[in-house]
Amino acid sequence: MKNNLIAEIISVGTEILLGDTINTNAAFLGKELASLGIFVCYTSVVGDNNVRLESAMKIAMSRADIIITTGGLGPTFDDLTKETIAKLLDLGMKIDKHSLNRIKDFFVRINREFTENNLKQALMPTGAIPLDNEFGTAPGLIINTSDGKIITMLPGPPREMQPMFNNKVIPFLLNKYSNSKKLFSKVINIFGIGESKVESMFANLMRTSVNPTIAPYAKLGELELRTTALAYNETKANEIINPIIEEITAKLKDKVYGIDAGSMQQEVVKILKDKELRLSTAESCTGGYLSKRITDVDGASKVYLGGVVAYSNEVKMQLLGVSEDILSKFGAVSEQVAKEMAKGVAIKLNADIGVSTTGIAGQTTDFTNKPTGLVYIGYYDRKSNLNYAIELHLARGYKDDRESIRYIASSNALFEIIKNIKGTL
Amino acid sequence: MKNNLIAEIISVGTEILLGDTINTNAAFLGKELASLGIFVCYTSVVGDNNVRLESAMKIAMSRADIIITTGGLGPTFDDLTKETIAKLLDLGMKIDKHSLNRIKDFFVRINREFTENNLKQALMPTGAIPLDNEFGTAPGLIINTSDGKIITMLPGPPREMQPMFNNKVIPFLLNKYSNSKKLFSKVINIFGIGESKVESMFANLMRTSVNPTIAPYAKLGELELRTTALAYNETKANEIINPIIEEITAKLKDKVYGIDAGSMQQEVVKILKDKELRLSTAESCTGGYLSKRITDVDGASKVYLGGVVAYSNEVKMQLLGVSEDILSKFGAVSEQVAKEMAKGVAIKLNADIGVSTTGIAGQTTDFTNKPTGLVYIGYYDRKSNLNYAIELHLARGYKDDRESIRYIASSNALFEIIKNIKGTL
Repeated sequence: MKNNLIAEIISVGTEILLGDTINTNAAFLGKELASLGIFVCYTSVVGDNNVRLESAMKIAMSRADIIITTGGLGPTFDDLTKETIAKLLDLGMKIDKHSLNRIKDFFVRINREFTENNLKQALMPTGAIPLDNEFGTAPGLIINTSDGKIITMLPGPPREMQPMFNNKVIPFLLNKYSNSKKLFSKVINIFGIGESKVESMFANLMRTSVNPTIAPYAKLGELELRTTALAYNETKANEIINPIIEEITAKLKDKVYGIDAGSMQQEVVKILKDKELRLSTAESCTGGYLSKRITDVDGASKVYLGGVVAYSNEVKMQLLGVSEDILSKFGAVSEQVAKEMAKGVAIKLNADIGVSTTGIAGQTTDFTNKPTGLVYIGYYDRKSNLNYAIELHLARGYKDDRESIRYIASSNALFEIIKNIKGTL
Repeated sequence: MKNNLIAEIISVGTEILLGDTINTNAAFLGKELASLGIFVCYTSVVGDNNVRLESAMKIAMSRADIIITTGGLGPTFDDLTKETIAKLLDLGMKIDKHSLNRIKDFFVRINREFTENNLKQALMPTGAIPLDNEFGTAPGLIINTSDGKIITMLPGPPREMQPMFNNKVIPFLLNKYSNSKKLFSKVINIFGIGESKVESMFANLMRTSVNPTIAPYAKLGELELRTTALAYNETKANEIINPIIEEITAKLKDKVYGIDAGSMQQEVVKILKDKELRLSTAESCTGGYLSKRITDVDGASKVYLGGVVAYSNEVKMQLLGVSEDILSKFGAVSEQVAKEMAKGVAIKLNADIGVSTTGIAGQTTDFTNKPTGLVYIGYYDRKSNLNYAIELHLARGYKDDRESIRYIASSNALFEIIKNIKGTL
């Protein structure tokens, strides 16, 4: 792509402003345009209102090279994207016969009457390039304006818009602006260290890097650092990105749990598959959150046998073989019980690895005055007979502590699996 | 509310422009503002860039009474919403001691180092009203501008932004603009019937009702109808709302699983407590999602004993006593296995109720050519010896099918519990 091409996205539809439809179109287009090396500086949403659309178009044309609209191409009176933009550009409108025939064919195929309001969908501003809609009736279109800008109008439904953009608009843009660099990204997945701490470690690098750029993105208990390079191809991009990834990884050591891992549970399933190990879980405070996350991964059944949600002491004893002595001596939320749960489930289910959680997630306690947020993660490795538990303090004093304590507890359990299997314990 | 108040939403964040984050904040705020009678004519997204944010702010201030920003309040150098808007309004910035203390307390609580860049989060433009963040560190703020506009800056993460808007901004707006009447809402919780069907049943009521208003809100597999009355107090509001709720409930019958229930799992825990019944779960395809949702509810341990995640056939046999004969004859995804799982877990755990899931959520099958989306929910009631399973077909052919199949399967399991206990089977 030519350097510094700027695109702007305008999504048209009152249902988006009202929040009835979430604007996934802007996200899709933003991602696709970034991968082409086209920068999106603004996106906006306007209702089905010609005055406001015209105002938004004027602003967009003052600051972007490429303007992409979605929505407002249908047959009804409140579909007015083409009409408004044609008027703004001082272009007439006429029926595009090719598009009209396609729409008529469609009505024959589905055995429905072609009503007159459908003529409107074949109307095109003079000089526009129609884009066939493979998944609906409303064609899209591209206008090359007299001052060198490109205006692309796409239908609103994602299943019509996405293939039209990929199959029609991208080839058009590549042809128009060939010879171009593209954006390539890799994500460094980090656990167990805060965003502000990481930023202070790499402040200079993050602030001064231009190619690649390095951007932090904090998730609950985790941090992603996205490194993005502008390059002609992936090999060149890797030459730019990989040294930075190595530099950051060398400093953060085992806090880095993966590169482009997707999620901790994906990394866990992946490395268990690699090592042909079978996992089992025993959950108290996380109550199924850990197993839910593992089984979020398609194909988890290859490495995950199952588990026990031992929410009551009876279940801990009966299904996991935790001894009544230990339960009464140390309480359910204890290092000893966590260890027994992890070992118990692995042996009961004949698994290579057992991992457990027990803790205080909410107001309900084990009646020993232990504080909210106290969590033990137990680990058992059958082959080495390794059996230990770590102690965590996860209360943050927020109202959603229950959710975050349970989530971060399950993340810690996943992290223990990754650390142990990768041998960086 | 004063007539014709216009709001504009500006979401700040390069990750939104890049499509890495879908802008659900604008949808949430659009919906909430609409329910307050405040019109949103435009929303826009800008990256973490002070020049572009200033430009978007100028445009918004030229056409809206209320401007709400989300994002850019964090500790890092690319968080610059407050700084940019303060400069635009010619306001100085100073540390808000109350906010600073809250942030410092947070770092003490989580036992992490308070790094200097966190000071930035306590900086406020002169005259701003700080909004405590109950779910994170970055406070929000409200500025009353000299020309009578309101600028509200909220954090980007939805779990911080949504409660701050509901608990801090809505009361502020109601106090500022209302003549003493307030909005009161009740939500009708509906399961097992589609939005368009409900809309067609109550189209006239929904379209013509002014006080109360009736607004549908579709969630995955569920529908909420929010009835909102403008009234001087709750008693008056109930006089307006209750007849409508009765009318709708009479028509939808047992599809209504609660009023202001919060969630299906909250309703389940509540009615189990009322009836002093103890629940157990046996999950295959949901893999812990069901038990996770039940234990999301604080106090679930009073009624939920625990469960088994029986992801492999071995676990189904060993921990739940499902017979090898039945597994090999009908396959793991079958009515018979669902029934045995539900009964097996209830007996093993000495529970009053057992509920089970088995199905095909993704590409992994039980090797019997059963289709993705086929799910059985098993139910067992110890007292009456009731033991049955229902068959569901949950595939929609979308890319997120695995998540939605697992979620809706767990919803159906919760719904069976509610139906049976409420005796409306």
